[in-house]
Amino acid sequence: MSERIWTAALVVIGDEILSGRTQDKNVAQLASWLNVQGIRLAEVRIVPDVEAAIVEAVNTLRARNDYLFTTGGIGPTHDDITVDAIAVALGVPVVIHPEARAALDRYYASRGGLTEARLRMARVPEGAELIANRMSGAPGIRVGNLFILAGVPHITAGMLDALTGTLEGGLPVLARTVGAWVPESEIAEMLGATERAHPGVAIGSYPFFREGRVGANFVVRATEQALVDQVIDALTAGLTAAGHAPVEGGI
Amino acid sequence: MSERIWTAALVVIGDEILSGRTQDKNVAQLASWLNVQGIRLAEVRIVPDVEAAIVEAVNTLRARNDYLFTTGGIGPTHDDITVDAIAVALGVPVVIHPEARAALDRYYASRGGLTEARLRMARVPEGAELIANRMSGAPGIRVGNLFILAGVPHITAGMLDALTGTLEGGLPVLARTVGAWVPESEIAEMLGATERAHPGVAIGSYPFFREGRVGANFVVRATEQALVDQVIDALTAGLTAAGHAPVEGGI
Repeated sequence: MSERIWTAALVVIGDEILSGRTQDKNVAQLASWLNVQGIRLAEVRIVPDVEAAIVEAVNTLRARNDYLFTTGGIGPTHDDITVDAIAVALGVPVVIHPEARAALDRYYASRGGLTEARLRMARVPEGAELIANRMSGAPGIRVGNLFILAGVPHITAGMLDALTGTLEGGLPVLARTVGAWVPESEIAEMLGATERAHPGVAIGSYPFFREGRVGANFVVRATEQALVDQVIDALTAGLTAAGHAPVEGGI
Repeated sequence: MSERIWTAALVVIGDEILSGRTQDKNVAQLASWLNVQGIRLAEVRIVPDVEAAIVEAVNTLRARNDYLFTTGGIGPTHDDITVDAIAVALGVPVVIHPEARAALDRYYASRGGLTEARLRMARVPEGAELIANRMSGAPGIRVGNLFILAGVPHITAGMLDALTGTLEGGLPVLARTVGAWVPESEIAEMLGATERAHPGVAIGSYPFFREGRVGANFVVRATEQALVDQVIDALTAGLTAAGHAPVEGGI
């Protein structure tokens, strides 16, 4: 019986990623978190702080995935246009969320009060719920299966924490790794044959150059532990037979 | 006179990025390199090792950008399908490139010879040229304005090196940063007004939390140095007037 696969997509919003100024960390962070929820990150788009680009990405990706996440652009400054762009994508107005306003009021009570700029962070697409943010006053936003998260990675992490266990998913993908000090080209045929012999398994081959030597790690992914273990055993035997000492867990 | 803006897009190909196993470094690396060439990275898509996903991304993005880059999936193993997928996208057959074959022959002469798996790395979409790779035997591939690069970041870097100065571009985007220990919400209005008063300039506001304190860096971007300097002066004056010591170069 084949298990339903749940998928998510991510739109990373921000000129700072596309200019090379900031190294994105949310793709890897969200991917790892999703996997624990039994959801696969199927595709990512990185777009600039431009309304039309955000609208296109959001509408394309939400139509073909179970969940859509965005990161970035929900702060108080002029370059934070995510909420407005997503409201356009959804065809709904932007409203002030009363709980978000109350949360910002509390947070800024001892920090100079709720100014107009700060009130921007209480704006949500109509119909939205809030996602708790313990790190600062500005909440994340949920509109159905669309999740609007912060861009600063440790704030994003807190919002994901608040969502843990609340999303319906399938079986998480399990992974085990075996490595060897061998050029992947030498055992490419064995790898391909092993994958073909085990439907439901994906084997990734990731070469590297370290300590002046060439090696590769082979990552076996499937939703059944027994199947993952069986393929790891097959690769271990195949590497050994070819004269390359397998390193359990990878190098 | 408005300067023509040259744009590029990037398709990152690889299950290892979408699974969270590997932290991508090529987005930031390519973005920085492109900027020096006078080309802006306009959009990025991260797709799995699936032909249809690669074809869709490649064909959409090459149609609306001056240049398209891909990273990943050009090795010798079964999960390396980039060349085949791009040939499908371009509607051309895959052929063995004679120079690539010769380069691999030389590289593997002392490393066990050119096997069938290794010969896979000489396969290119018909009509392609090679991009030199000093790090290993497998070259990158250029087909018109489409550049197929390796996924391992230091190999990608070598291929970009080989391309430096060969692509037509416009003026590079210049950037300067000023920072302050202030919540961005306190000076949001001044930032927005400063940007509006200086057409051709983008000001990015990037908040952070460090040493238990809140601060932000403000990045001014434009293609004219005088304009960048003028806006940095305006922000410096604005921060000072609001009682926040500006930190030249950012915090």
